[in-house]
Amino acid sequence: MSAISKEIIRFCFDLEYKALPVHTVKMVKMALLDFLGVAIRGSLTDSAQIVMKFVKKSAPKGRFPIIGSKYLTSPEYAALANGVAAHSIELDDIHKDASLHPGVVIFPAALAAAKLARSTGKDFIVAVVLGYEIMVRLGMSLGPEEHYAHGFHPTATCGVFGSTVAVAKLLGLDKKQMSYALGIAGSMTSGLREYHSEGAWTKRLHPGWAAHNGILASFLAREGFTGPLQVIEGKNGFLRSYSDSPRPEQVCQHLGSSYAISSISFKLHACCRFKHAPIDGILKIVKEHNLKPEEIKKIKLGILSVAFPAIVEPVEVKYNPRSVSVAQFSMPYGAAISILKRRASLEEYEEKYLDSKEVNNLMQRVECFRDPSLDAAFPTQWPATIQIETSDGKTLEIFVPHPKGDPENPLSWRELEEKFRQLSALLYSHQEQNKLIDRVKDLDELSDISKLYNPLIRRQR
Amino acid sequence: MSAISKEIIRFCFDLEYKALPVHTVKMVKMALLDFLGVAIRGSLTDSAQIVMKFVKKSAPKGRFPIIGSKYLTSPEYAALANGVAAHSIELDDIHKDASLHPGVVIFPAALAAAKLARSTGKDFIVAVVLGYEIMVRLGMSLGPEEHYAHGFHPTATCGVFGSTVAVAKLLGLDKKQMSYALGIAGSMTSGLREYHSEGAWTKRLHPGWAAHNGILASFLAREGFTGPLQVIEGKNGFLRSYSDSPRPEQVCQHLGSSYAISSISFKLHACCRFKHAPIDGILKIVKEHNLKPEEIKKIKLGILSVAFPAIVEPVEVKYNPRSVSVAQFSMPYGAAISILKRRASLEEYEEKYLDSKEVNNLMQRVECFRDPSLDAAFPTQWPATIQIETSDGKTLEIFVPHPKGDPENPLSWRELEEKFRQLSALLYSHQEQNKLIDRVKDLDELSDISKLYNPLIRRQR
Repeated sequence: MSAISKEIIRFCFDLEYKALPVHTVKMVKMALLDFLGVAIRGSLTDSAQIVMKFVKKSAPKGRFPIIGSKYLTSPEYAALANGVAAHSIELDDIHKDASLHPGVVIFPAALAAAKLARSTGKDFIVAVVLGYEIMVRLGMSLGPEEHYAHGFHPTATCGVFGSTVAVAKLLGLDKKQMSYALGIAGSMTSGLREYHSEGAWTKRLHPGWAAHNGILASFLAREGFTGPLQVIEGKNGFLRSYSDSPRPEQVCQHLGSSYAISSISFKLHACCRFKHAPIDGILKIVKEHNLKPEEIKKIKLGILSVAFPAIVEPVEVKYNPRSVSVAQFSMPYGAAISILKRRASLEEYEEKYLDSKEVNNLMQRVECFRDPSLDAAFPTQWPATIQIETSDGKTLEIFVPHPKGDPENPLSWRELEEKFRQLSALLYSHQEQNKLIDRVKDLDELSDISKLYNPLIRRQR
Repeated sequence: MSAISKEIIRFCFDLEYKALPVHTVKMVKMALLDFLGVAIRGSLTDSAQIVMKFVKKSAPKGRFPIIGSKYLTSPEYAALANGVAAHSIELDDIHKDASLHPGVVIFPAALAAAKLARSTGKDFIVAVVLGYEIMVRLGMSLGPEEHYAHGFHPTATCGVFGSTVAVAKLLGLDKKQMSYALGIAGSMTSGLREYHSEGAWTKRLHPGWAAHNGILASFLAREGFTGPLQVIEGKNGFLRSYSDSPRPEQVCQHLGSSYAISSISFKLHACCRFKHAPIDGILKIVKEHNLKPEEIKKIKLGILSVAFPAIVEPVEVKYNPRSVSVAQFSMPYGAAISILKRRASLEEYEEKYLDSKEVNNLMQRVECFRDPSLDAAFPTQWPATIQIETSDGKTLEIFVPHPKGDPENPLSWRELEEKFRQLSALLYSHQEQNKLIDRVKDLDELSDISKLYNPLIRRQR
């Protein structure tokens, strides 16, 4: 294998703002606004509140805000708390080819590092682009299915490399320090998928942990702590240890010719991305035919093979979700609630529906099956087939190749702004929302990232 | 698979001091004295000094001492620094059946947690026994060779589970919190072996990182953050993700009938344990026959297959070590320096010898070969065959089944005390050493672990 780690470092060290296409800069702003919305709303979840309790009790006070609170701590603990909060409501961005969530890792790390370094908006944008780029490329090179099968969560494992390059860039590390930081990050790579069996919060922990560790890897490297220089491609390096069939040649292929952040997907439904195509299809059929729950006899969903273990299995757990975090990964719940509420956003993923007779009744009519005809297109497409049999004997069918929010079926800035307003409404006034939106729009003009950060911490909690 | 994680928690929650055999308590004291020696001396290495710089610059001040300094920080950063220091001189304890270093993970975590909880010496002893037990059992269940081949460093990956149970026990977590802590630890499991290719310090980082993470996992669980309840045995759990042929049935086999800490090995040579049997054999031949370097024509070393990639490969690196950390893992260097100096302790692993003509000249005469006849006994034995051809045509041979320090070839308390005195002499007076040794001897009588800790921080640096 060639010197992949070295090539990554060269690229990260050299990239300048002026090289970025206009569309890429716009996507950074969209991703940032999306991140702020999910982090603000996510800060109210039980998982985020518990991390906040932990930070208040065991982590130091500092200058770095936990979004949605007035609490300030050290950069790595702020990143931890913000990453957990943002991933707790399953509405954060995703890169479908890599099958991971970049925003919830990269932004918490980059915001902390940019504040520490008093970076400009332009510097911040470059660092975010790099973070997304390395994280996504590693995910694609591992192969999502292979990496999943190994038991790992790519948002966690690839995330730490992304957060590390973003932080290293913002802190102004030299090439050697950056190389060490990447090498150290390889020894801070973690994140099992065992949470799936019972909806444990470790999934929500992973992005915060990856952001946290990217900061520590960079701090250690800045002082001269050494890491292996071929951590990606080495014999005992990341790719070989975390995948049985890695594609190392893809890591640096066409590096710089386009940017991964330009092809991310945004979510409208508050659940695992694998559930979005089925839900889009169900909503379309139910709305077009104005179907009432009692008119539906059967819902047959053709699911990607790779998605099946995440959103259908274990069957006894997914057909009887005992917590919101299980519901977020339950296809039967997602189908049932979509039929019942004709939407599947945050308000539909609440404790109170878990014991609802209507929901449970509908779940019994949901049949999920592996549809191998979908698999060939994955991960370029995240498709589903939807078939609804009505009680009067009709069969309504639809195929959804790309869920709403994918690059092929994109969200507009207006739709994204609307999502942000809904998510942040519990903590911020309309005026405060406007201020935040304006700052994000002007991100490339900010002389200091604190100007973005400060309005976020004015709310008392 | 059965409910392994649950059984571990039950065992850890229930274990009391009075259940421990006298020999086990004695081994905790020996392991502690050994740890203090390596942590004190290790604190002077470049890798430990750099972590100290990082802690002073980026981590908070607190009440938890970095051993060998006057600096106090938070529990997790003290554990990080102490774990790195103690593993930096390759003289720390090892469990050969699990092929990992328990002391440098468990003691830094348990010392910090015990100070936080103001634990008694007896409580501390129980927590240390548990930490060693879980860490070692996981290592054995993964299978050292299989786990190595996967690219992972068992001291790091199994370590975090050991530090977590030790800390959870000391903090008095209830069973549910302990279960969550173990689940969270599964998502903080990390540590690649890529350091081998060039002697990067990530190896030294791993024990500190595992200790650090065990503290955070326990803190998060204490506040109610959830983790998966079958993190060890689950479909996407630790054993399946980190080994292709795990032996889950071994994790809890005969749990409580004997204790892993009773069968650890102590090191006299400052290098990878795989080098010890060859060095023991070389020293024996050279001393018995009073051989001078120039009288030696060839040194042929039969090496365990599993050891070969660690201490012989890559050949071009190991025959030309450019740093002390490579030399610690270079069999040719170890053989050469043993012949030259007739010992292979810390003073023999110094920068100044890397360019020595005598050393390099001797290295050229060292021939290492994989000896498959040794493999069947591994890891019960860590043996080597040694053959020295002299310039006057003699061939001297020896087989070393168990290097000095193994349970089958043990160190006495007196020999261990002597090792401690040598290692700590640069920082502590004879009187101070006596005080520390006495405190360790009286560990089971200490009313507060601070009484052990405080004498360690009196030295100014």
